[in-house]
Amino acid sequence: MFESASLPHRVEKTAYRRQEPKLRQSLLEAQYELLRGGRFATLILIAGIEGAGKSETVNLLNEWMDPRHIEVNGFGPPSDEESERPRLWRYWRALPPRGKIGIFFGGWHTEPVMDRVQGRIDSARFEQEMSEILRLERMLVDEGVLLLKFWFHLSKPQQKKRLRQLEKDPVTAWRVTGDDWDLYRHYDDFAAVCEPFLRRTSTAEAPWLVIAGAEERYRSLTVGRTLLAALRERIDEPPADRLPDRSPPLPPAVDRLNVLRALQLERPMTRADYARQLEEWSGRLNRLYRDPRIRQMAVIAVFEGSDAAGKGGAIRRVTRALDARSYHTVSVAAPSEEERAQPYLWRFWRHAPRRGRLLIFDRSWYGRVLVERVEGLCREPDWMRAYSEINDFEQQLARHRVMVVKFWLAISKEEQYLRFRARESTAFKRFKITAEDWRNRRKWVEYEKAVCDMVDRTSTGVAPWTLVEADNKYFARIKVLRTLVESIEAALAGFDAAAGLKVRAKSPGKPRRRQS
Amino acid sequence: MFESASLPHRVEKTAYRRQEPKLRQSLLEAQYELLRGGRFATLILIAGIEGAGKSETVNLLNEWMDPRHIEVNGFGPPSDEESERPRLWRYWRALPPRGKIGIFFGGWHTEPVMDRVQGRIDSARFEQEMSEILRLERMLVDEGVLLLKFWFHLSKPQQKKRLRQLEKDPVTAWRVTGDDWDLYRHYDDFAAVCEPFLRRTSTAEAPWLVIAGAEERYRSLTVGRTLLAALRERIDEPPADRLPDRSPPLPPAVDRLNVLRALQLERPMTRADYARQLEEWSGRLNRLYRDPRIRQMAVIAVFEGSDAAGKGGAIRRVTRALDARSYHTVSVAAPSEEERAQPYLWRFWRHAPRRGRLLIFDRSWYGRVLVERVEGLCREPDWMRAYSEINDFEQQLARHRVMVVKFWLAISKEEQYLRFRARESTAFKRFKITAEDWRNRRKWVEYEKAVCDMVDRTSTGVAPWTLVEADNKYFARIKVLRTLVESIEAALAGFDAAAGLKVRAKSPGKPRRRQS
Repeated sequence: MFESASLPHRVEKTAYRRQEPKLRQSLLEAQYELLRGGRFATLILIAGIEGAGKSETVNLLNEWMDPRHIEVNGFGPPSDEESERPRLWRYWRALPPRGKIGIFFGGWHTEPVMDRVQGRIDSARFEQEMSEILRLERMLVDEGVLLLKFWFHLSKPQQKKRLRQLEKDPVTAWRVTGDDWDLYRHYDDFAAVCEPFLRRTSTAEAPWLVIAGAEERYRSLTVGRTLLAALRERIDEPPADRLPDRSPPLPPAVDRLNVLRALQLERPMTRADYARQLEEWSGRLNRLYRDPRIRQMAVIAVFEGSDAAGKGGAIRRVTRALDARSYHTVSVAAPSEEERAQPYLWRFWRHAPRRGRLLIFDRSWYGRVLVERVEGLCREPDWMRAYSEINDFEQQLARHRVMVVKFWLAISKEEQYLRFRARESTAFKRFKITAEDWRNRRKWVEYEKAVCDMVDRTSTGVAPWTLVEADNKYFARIKVLRTLVESIEAALAGFDAAAGLKVRAKSPGKPRRRQS
Repeated sequence: MFESASLPHRVEKTAYRRQEPKLRQSLLEAQYELLRGGRFATLILIAGIEGAGKSETVNLLNEWMDPRHIEVNGFGPPSDEESERPRLWRYWRALPPRGKIGIFFGGWHTEPVMDRVQGRIDSARFEQEMSEILRLERMLVDEGVLLLKFWFHLSKPQQKKRLRQLEKDPVTAWRVTGDDWDLYRHYDDFAAVCEPFLRRTSTAEAPWLVIAGAEERYRSLTVGRTLLAALRERIDEPPADRLPDRSPPLPPAVDRLNVLRALQLERPMTRADYARQLEEWSGRLNRLYRDPRIRQMAVIAVFEGSDAAGKGGAIRRVTRALDARSYHTVSVAAPSEEERAQPYLWRFWRHAPRRGRLLIFDRSWYGRVLVERVEGLCREPDWMRAYSEINDFEQQLARHRVMVVKFWLAISKEEQYLRFRARESTAFKRFKITAEDWRNRRKWVEYEKAVCDMVDRTSTGVAPWTLVEADNKYFARIKVLRTLVESIEAALAGFDAAAGLKVRAKSPGKPRRRQS
């Protein structure tokens, strides 16, 4: 894969002087068109061999274009903040918004590649990491990001020569450290990992672009022209805005039975019983958050449900049990301008909690497969791919010991009618009911289908859905509290057991639907 | 993921009797439209729990539609023929052509899932298998196949009840074996593997469609209606014929240097030296094919090169050294009608060699990224994805110890001119030169770019390209023979070493370009 890039490519000084000003001018123009259009984000990954001109290229791009609209991110070892979050969090956080150019100096590939070179992970685990990278990059491209992955290459003799040159010049000598010579000595090990890595993570939509790094003028013109061609193609001949619809239709409903209708929504619970249980489960939750072991994990509680199903009330029963420093609540409404300029999961990734915290989502990323699907705010290929993207997201969280507990609060159509009417007739509740609620109610069957598909496609061993029978608010609130407490307790017990065992195969739990 | 399918779904007899005739009629109509249109193939995977109605469904579909245009393939343990080929070969072989419906009873998922359930492979290896499945299925969909993956589900109590019922009825008792009860006892292990499997291999373009299997009428209507909806959608609203172009342009040529121009094409070799070396390397090749160890592997030799570069002559020097029973030559011309009705790699997969054989391709699957790219016979998104599809294909072969040795025979533009002229002036060579050759020659630069991209993107540790300097035919033929012999010898030595070691990490070889 490095055949072309190992050749002694070079561009003469005079040729370079002739071509460089035109290229700069065109790049600057393209950058401004990108900015004005605001249609897509451009993300440039800078990867490859040490000494192959990576940092020089980053500097050059900033010189050639307007650096105010370029965001450069260098990724070294993770900060405290970062290492308490899932591995991909810091890359998500740094994604460029539409209209801008982001440069990642190092990126999601660096850690797995170096871990593999240095033998910290085996080849099977490396395969897993590559498969995760493939899914992430496909998601970015599906979301419209122009992803350019540059791999700067030097042959082994070229790298040696380059390090020697840098050392000789007093201006650059500081840049060569013992680490660099160490990397040189392990050149072959590095190549043996990178070659299959590049092969497996090169796809039609996000191919690796291998750049011969030895000669500066050739390298600069190649990167510049590649970037220019990519920007121009995207600006001048935008691809069909939307993905083609290649999803087969999901199975239609054949009988009237579904996971929602199968629930017995009216569950008895007296006020006295409620008061007693509320005290018990609140106490247990509170004690859990004072247990030092809670620092080993984070919890995300997701609340979804029909309008007026009692999400707010249930959430308040959880937060009342806790010290305000242990939890944070995110109410999901329409995305902000900043959020609209990013892939749709970005606004949820940005909230990824640190260890020891409980993060509560009042509505969540599931909007994509619920309201956006039903109201036609996104097309079938987009909400269909969301199922796997969401599962990937939750798996990323789980791998980092962020437990996701998901509640669907279900009420009957009749109960909803009564609650809507009650809201309308009670002055202080009137703000809670709008014309939109009545409109949504008319699409009851469509929402029901969307909820059933969501449960079937995203209730996983990693992050199961809990369906909460919510016609009786007391019952619903207790079920939420109890499920949350029991899930956290089980996770902590799991950690304790794991600490006692060498290797513990994680068996996916059952969906908690049957616990009720 | 089994929430909906675990419910006690059922359809009343009267409702079924009313709906079934209409459904049959519509399915039959759709089948005939599919057949007449001949635009896409439909592939139905039948998977899931034993006793959930899989074989009943296959029978039913054959009853409802015209069985002459349905190809059912059941995959049990592989035959001798099959186990000597890469794992995916038998599935490729059985793919339905455009216009037809293929039903796979079991498929590429069965072996990895059962291997994982029974602990023969670990979770990391299972991840690898899933990632391979994802790539295969994406390729099929990219090639236009309508892929419907049905997963038939039963809850544990439903499975028990079902097996009891079958046993009770003397007509069906024979169908229940000890194995089935064994599977029932391992229900939870099976579920623990299937749940993450379904999650990870459900994509927007090929989602798993989980079917509640317990009640026959419900199951039948659900499958029938899902199939009908999918066929109708595809026939009535065909998706954009072509994939959107989301590939960034590959780096343009900045200087005049490339892997072909870097070659010194004219290499001296006297006739006497040639004769001596030809004897030596032919002898070694012949001895290799009489070595019993050759039965441990198969070899595919791919010959590509400019027109008149001497592919035929080089191939003859290889085959002359061998017994006709050890090799087979495939000359690739325009695809046959049968081949055109399949994904483009199908016509190469079908030739996958058995152990101990040498298979020679005179032109190959690389036509996709050479002539089809340059002549505009396929669009950029199609040839761009071909690089990874080809790498996947060659990796599949390599995993099954099929070594792929790839030769590009390179001649200079001047040498080609001389050979064309010589062909025109020699009566018995005139058939070898056509107007098309002169036309291709005018696109020399475009072909050169395509060859360089091909080498950079598909010369891998698994299957490196050997560039052969071919202005001197003697030199070229010897280099081909020597490379082939040395590659096979190295592979056999590798097997010997592996047999002596417990685990041997396979380190990717270097591209053999520098051997010359």
